[in-house]
Amino acid sequence: MNILAIGDVVGSIGCRFLRVHLPQFKKMKGIDLVIANGENSADGNGLTPVSVQFLFDSGVDVITSGNHSFRRKESYELYDSCEYLLRPANFPASVPGKGSCIVDMGRIQVGVINLMGTIYMESLDSPFDMADRLLKEMPKITLIDFHAEATGEKRSFGYYLDGRVSAVFGTHTHVQTADECVLPQGTGYISDLGMTGPIQSVLGVKPELVIEKMRTKMPVRFALAEGDCKMECTLFQIDEKTGKTVSVERIQIQ
Amino acid sequence: MNILAIGDVVGSIGCRFLRVHLPQFKKMKGIDLVIANGENSADGNGLTPVSVQFLFDSGVDVITSGNHSFRRKESYELYDSCEYLLRPANFPASVPGKGSCIVDMGRIQVGVINLMGTIYMESLDSPFDMADRLLKEMPKITLIDFHAEATGEKRSFGYYLDGRVSAVFGTHTHVQTADECVLPQGTGYISDLGMTGPIQSVLGVKPELVIEKMRTKMPVRFALAEGDCKMECTLFQIDEKTGKTVSVERIQIQ
Amino acid sequence: MNILAIGDVVGSIGCRFLRVHLPQFKKMKGIDLVIANGENSADGNGLTPVSVQFLFDSGVDVITSGNHSFRRKESYELYDSCEYLLRPANFPASVPGKGSCIVDMGRIQVGVINLMGTIYMESLDSPFDMADRLLKEMPKITLIDFHAEATGEKRSFGYYLDGRVSAVFGTHTHVQTADECVLPQGTGYISDLGMTGPIQSVLGVKPELVIEKMRTKMPVRFALAEGDCKMECTLFQIDEKTGKTVSVERIQIQ
Amino acid sequence: MNILAIGDVVGSIGCRFLRVHLPQFKKMKGIDLVIANGENSADGNGLTPVSVQFLFDSGVDVITSGNHSFRRKESYELYDSCEYLLRPANFPASVPGKGSCIVDMGRIQVGVINLMGTIYMESLDSPFDMADRLLKEMPKITLIDFHAEATGEKRSFGYYLDGRVSAVFGTHTHVQTADECVLPQGTGYISDLGMTGPIQSVLGVKPELVIEKMRTKMPVRFALAEGDCKMECTLFQIDEKTGKTVSVERIQIQ
Ligand SMILES: [Fe+2]
Ligand SMILES: [Fe+2]
Ligand SMILES: [Fe+2]
Ligand SMILES: [Fe+2]
Ligand SMILES: [Fe+2]
Ligand SMILES: [Fe+2]
Ligand SMILES: [Fe+2]
Ligand SMILES: [Fe+2]
Repeated sequence: MNILAIGDVVGSIGCRFLRVHLPQFKKMKGIDLVIANGENSADGNGLTPVSVQFLFDSGVDVITSGNHSFRRKESYELYDSCEYLLRPANFPASVPGKGSCIVDMGRIQVGVINLMGTIYMESLDSPFDMADRLLKEMPKITLIDFHAEATGEKRSFGYYLDGRVSAVFGTHTHVQTADECVLPQGTGYISDLGMTGPIQSVLGVKPELVIEKMRTKMPVRFALAEGDCKMECTLFQIDEKTGKTVSVERIQIQ
Repeated sequence: MNILAIGDVVGSIGCRFLRVHLPQFKKMKGIDLVIANGENSADGNGLTPVSVQFLFDSGVDVITSGNHSFRRKESYELYDSCEYLLRPANFPASVPGKGSCIVDMGRIQVGVINLMGTIYMESLDSPFDMADRLLKEMPKITLIDFHAEATGEKRSFGYYLDGRVSAVFGTHTHVQTADECVLPQGTGYISDLGMTGPIQSVLGVKPELVIEKMRTKMPVRFALAEGDCKMECTLFQIDEKTGKTVSVERIQIQ
Repeated sequence: MNILAIGDVVGSIGCRFLRVHLPQFKKMKGIDLVIANGENSADGNGLTPVSVQFLFDSGVDVITSGNHSFRRKESYELYDSCEYLLRPANFPASVPGKGSCIVDMGRIQVGVINLMGTIYMESLDSPFDMADRLLKEMPKITLIDFHAEATGEKRSFGYYLDGRVSAVFGTHTHVQTADECVLPQGTGYISDLGMTGPIQSVLGVKPELVIEKMRTKMPVRFALAEGDCKMECTLFQIDEKTGKTVSVERIQIQ
Repeated sequence: MNILAIGDVVGSIGCRFLRVHLPQFKKMKGIDLVIANGENSADGNGLTPVSVQFLFDSGVDVITSGNHSFRRKESYELYDSCEYLLRPANFPASVPGKGSCIVDMGRIQVGVINLMGTIYMESLDSPFDMADRLLKEMPKITLIDFHAEATGEKRSFGYYLDGRVSAVFGTHTHVQTADECVLPQGTGYISDLGMTGPIQSVLGVKPELVIEKMRTKMPVRFALAEGDCKMECTLFQIDEKTGKTVSVERIQIQ
């Protein structure tokens, strides 16, 4: 089966671009399931009931998130009520929502896990240990969105799970990496899916604003860039019998 | 003219792979100048007189470095004596060596600058301000190795210098990014060149060792991975009249 | 002469407590000059024209600040117009204000420098180098507010300037340290002055709110604690002839 | 009963100073139990069988540690075999040793817990949650060494446990804080005990070496300072009936 994983969708501009291109692309590639990271889908970061609904309506099946999961109070209730909206599973147990779900596709079940890295990020329970625990109850076909910064943590996490999950894909840096591959034991892998949003930007934001912040160290209010967009994603072709990934295709749609 | 920039060369295994493939590749592509990041060219990180000489003998013209520049005492003298070995220019002024050089190619001069980012890294003088200062005395064709971790800092640095240098390429994460492009004002750009070293590895190191460190938080002695290697690099085709980049080609040689 | 340095004044509750106790304390101790860190003097962090004026009216002569210097837009103009309001001198040159001032006390001049550490904080120009530069134009009696987190950076900064300034006192952690002393070459030193604000608090904030943030890793809106306050400060008795500190008294007023 | 907690003992010079002063001080103050942080008791950081034995022989009853617990391979076996040598309890479960112990004092039992903070430090399991779990099986009189950097994390940890343990004392910064108190619900508290080692030093190390590292950002081999020492500690007087702290005395012995 073909499972598409889409990098952080940034703001309403990114959401609209996704809506325009995803349906057609799904048909063209025969995609069975779509996972997208939506932690920045609301303008001003985080996600809202509106941005979540927009993504689902556009053809996304499971929404993952990350360090911006709880930026918006209006989304908290959603994490509990919406089965296919995830926050990192290694957040403290007391926060709203859950970090994994199983999509029943009739003949077959697909698990999705969302975890967060801990290097250069918030201290959280070990994503390695948490993956071990969660995998006891996940179906043969399971994919993990590992929302993390450091390439060392991401790649070692991929190797740690090699042969035990269908795919591990990274998110958070908003820059697509070119290390997509099938790891030795059959797990599809890419360090970062990239981003869905404005091309001429710094992670979605107007470059001049980020430059100002970097140069002055003063508070700067960020605004999303405009102009042409791209959707960065990766397609995992998975063998339903083994749960292993057969091929990985890294994609940039402009 | 064609200038090739090669990502962090890791250990003697990476050096040997480079030596096997670089000379032929230079001919094939008509490459005029080669820049390589050598901060990990010695086994056990840093660089040594032996690894530096090996890289030069293999066809590298300028060696840049980064946070591992001063790992090895035996290299300190080299930074002063060797014109084409650089350390980040925004290191404190008292350290050995210099952060920029100009290669005289007869008809034309090519400048190379090495700078380091400051997010999730050592605090250093602003790479933005230092670039401004250095550019006053650099030739029309100048490239910058920006050794940094955070994609936000890297991309904003690229935009900051867009139109003012021929190219900005990132190093340090050891994972190649897929955002190579010519920025709107003509500067060639990629967030990270990637690495030259063993493919089945975590940034060059044996995966099981990095996993152990991540999981236990205990000290673990790293050892380089073995097996097949790759050389990750990017080719900037630069217009000699304008100093602008005409095209960018991202490359993985296996 | 007697110079009093007061730790971060937190919110209107801290400002009011200072106003009640400072005038009387100055008389009692024969204090000639008062320096206070005001970076949190506005409710909700940063400082405002109102909080700055309040501190000056309460008997503070020089206000220093730190990582919260630019939290409030309404204060930016003040940094330029007000001679005795400082922000860290090693901020980028383009930001408002200045990092040092000289108070003319008739017969004698007193310099005050504000610098910020770089460990676990924003990357800035080296406070060590900046101190060297600034000291070329400062009077014999000069004190430095070193706004920093790490004790290693603070203490090494103190030793670096020992014998070259009258005193180095740390701020930022909001917890007073008990290492006040005169360093071997005559510089008065304390790693952190502490805080002026509510006693039963976590750095001024209601403990339950900080606990919630630490436990859940979710965004929590902080509110200042209430109840009894303290003013933490240190008194440097300085020899006017030599500029050296003769004695250091660490103080907590409740 | 009187329980003394001693700040990080640094190197053989710190160990020797402790041996000279502790026995006499115990008698003088009628101290029933001594806890000392030994994570730097070996020269060159970490601890060794020799330094551990030396501390026990000098009158220490329980040794705690921290981020340097596993610096020395030769100490690993000790963490398992020695009942009264602790490493932070929130380290991953797979590491040697344990993070709590109970000292049987005949009529009465005293629990000691060692935990580590996560701000500006390694990512670990939440010390808050781990404390909750451990306290289910600890005696009425229990003290916690919270090895942490940030004052905000330390103070909120203290308030979190207020009324539930006899005392929380911080270690790690090597600088004693002056915020010792009995918290509202009866828990003795101090943000940092300080250090046992050479007075004229930066956390035990020769100042000029730390200054060199801070200024050059180059690797510098640290060496312990020499000269007069101090022992910084805090005495908790605990009501055996309630397990609450009745009074806290902060101490510096020179
Ligand atoms: Fe993120
Ligand atoms: Fe994101
Ligand atoms: Fe490297
Ligand atoms: Fe590096
Ligand atoms: Fe403050
Ligand atoms: Fe501060
Ligand atoms: Fe420590
Ligand atoms: Fe220590």
